[in-house]
Amino acid sequence: MGDIQDRVFNFSAGPSVLPVEVLQEAQADLLNWKGCGMSVMEMSHRGKAFQSIIDQAEADLRALLGIPESYKVLFLQGGASLQFSMVPMNLLHPGETADYVVTGSWGKKALQAAKLVGSTKCVWDGKETNYDRLPDLSGLSFTEGAAYIHVTSNETIQGVEFQSDPDLPAPVVCDMSSDILSRPVDVAKYALIYAGAQKNMGPAGVTVVILREDLLARTPENFHPMLDYRLQAENASLYNTPPCWCIYICGLVYQHLLKNGGLQAALERNRRKAAIVYDAIDRSGGFYKGHAQKECRSLMNVTFTLPNEELTKAFLEGAKAHKLDGLKGHRSVGGSRASIYNAFPEEGCRVLAEYMDDFAKKNG
Amino acid sequence: MGDIQDRVFNFSAGPSVLPVEVLQEAQADLLNWKGCGMSVMEMSHRGKAFQSIIDQAEADLRALLGIPESYKVLFLQGGASLQFSMVPMNLLHPGETADYVVTGSWGKKALQAAKLVGSTKCVWDGKETNYDRLPDLSGLSFTEGAAYIHVTSNETIQGVEFQSDPDLPAPVVCDMSSDILSRPVDVAKYALIYAGAQKNMGPAGVTVVILREDLLARTPENFHPMLDYRLQAENASLYNTPPCWCIYICGLVYQHLLKNGGLQAALERNRRKAAIVYDAIDRSGGFYKGHAQKECRSLMNVTFTLPNEELTKAFLEGAKAHKLDGLKGHRSVGGSRASIYNAFPEEGCRVLAEYMDDFAKKNG
Repeated sequence: MGDIQDRVFNFSAGPSVLPVEVLQEAQADLLNWKGCGMSVMEMSHRGKAFQSIIDQAEADLRALLGIPESYKVLFLQGGASLQFSMVPMNLLHPGETADYVVTGSWGKKALQAAKLVGSTKCVWDGKETNYDRLPDLSGLSFTEGAAYIHVTSNETIQGVEFQSDPDLPAPVVCDMSSDILSRPVDVAKYALIYAGAQKNMGPAGVTVVILREDLLARTPENFHPMLDYRLQAENASLYNTPPCWCIYICGLVYQHLLKNGGLQAALERNRRKAAIVYDAIDRSGGFYKGHAQKECRSLMNVTFTLPNEELTKAFLEGAKAHKLDGLKGHRSVGGSRASIYNAFPEEGCRVLAEYMDDFAKKNG
Repeated sequence: MGDIQDRVFNFSAGPSVLPVEVLQEAQADLLNWKGCGMSVMEMSHRGKAFQSIIDQAEADLRALLGIPESYKVLFLQGGASLQFSMVPMNLLHPGETADYVVTGSWGKKALQAAKLVGSTKCVWDGKETNYDRLPDLSGLSFTEGAAYIHVTSNETIQGVEFQSDPDLPAPVVCDMSSDILSRPVDVAKYALIYAGAQKNMGPAGVTVVILREDLLARTPENFHPMLDYRLQAENASLYNTPPCWCIYICGLVYQHLLKNGGLQAALERNRRKAAIVYDAIDRSGGFYKGHAQKECRSLMNVTFTLPNEELTKAFLEGAKAHKLDGLKGHRSVGGSRASIYNAFPEEGCRVLAEYMDDFAKKNG
């Protein structure tokens, strides 16, 4: 029990696989972090030890993403789901409209939450083709003077991903939960980026918000403290006790990425990994059907269906013998989904592709 | 580095010390929980493994506190600070008033947050004597038909703690962040109990809310999802990805408490531990002055001052040689504060008391 050699290939859509080296370091230091006499879970968030952890995490995240000085980095709680509400609560004033580009299940949820706060406009919705494609953003008609334009860089359920940073006529707010740190990003193209940690950064329980400083002036006066970007920024994420352990693990992941060539190297690994699985789909002669249109295929979540329910069931069942775990597709797409975030090993993609080939040959 | 024998006596007010056995179990299972092939940090919150973890945690918490069937247990994010807002957002309707008993810094913050939501009445405030005492709750005049009465069972900064459960004419909402699980509680005396985990339950990043089911009807229709008790209850805390690791550690702490005699045994240990430190104050002939009046002394946070700033500094500096860490008092009270939550070892109280005796003898 608990042996490292018994780890499975974990295709979970999130929470998801973390680098083994990160887990090993956390394990070694669990009872006594760097000789300070206590666990990271036990230390005061007002003490020097934890301050050094959160400072280093922020510095490393800034280094990885090349975050400009004029942007604040916040470590908050509540996941992307709380950001769905906090973004309009802070940035959408009465009399203004926020534009939403709905490219999948998460964008839809973000729009629904914003509707409870203020005026919104859905400028594009891919539901007609079950979110299998992305719009050309430059061809959409946005609200003149929109408070912001909300996009979702990667949709985990449908497996569609924008391949480049948008250039739009209003402040861009981007839910980057499922592909942050998977490729270099031009942060200056965004007004605000938010991301739950549990795909590419760390454990569930911490949400990173990267926002341009001038946006802080838009938070209403005397707002609810825990929902107030300005207050959180003024207190450098320490207005109240932050999720210390989760921030610590994110920090270890950032260091691991820096040691391994940063985001350009991550992108190359991710392209290689995704190609291994997409190639298995494409050479199956139609046995596997990719859900996403080819030009907007996600490098993070590979979604595909099989000829029928029975074969899908047999495919998922048979995967277990190869230590392939978490391949079931979301019910709204069906079939199978292979989530292959940053920390997912290339070896696992190869094992999956071989299994796919084999299964198609036997059942095609 | 990282050795168990080098752990300090950690008097941090929170996050704070966890049982060594809990940390050891978490460490052993960190890369591969119970042979499932992955870390608790990596597993899907929709899978069987995590479902068993959260179900067991809830069952054990219910067993410890004797939570009636008619109460829901939620594992949320945002700490007590978010509850300061969520309580009135969900429970305080237009035209109603919520009563607040302000017995220290946290009660004050709760009231301030509620004022941003609706009509409140401060029925008692201990600021005149710097929150060194507690009111007789039965003697206060509450608002007729108050939406609820908010109390703070233990104030960490001032070190005052209610010794019994209140019996009040309106639904009682209690911030139990810093003394939950330190003694048996009659949950039926409360309408809603909330508690950040990071004192007696686990790591920072998860907040437990225990509320009477009928209160769920009070949440406004179409409310912001992540701030909506009803939605969280309907989804059994899995509306979005919960802070899985933090819930897991809480679960281990609950099991540890159950194995060690439950809350009655915890109360006896806590009484013994607190007596060791309070006795050192009381026998010092006035060298140490307890901040809290004797009849409302907290079993969790022992607050005391020394004759002057210089001696306070020397006392805190000298403590380090005895591996006594985190004894600095909060600036609003000054002096020293020994937070001795459930998991703090009795041995540490003895070492502190001896050091106090010794320091007083040399400097008194």
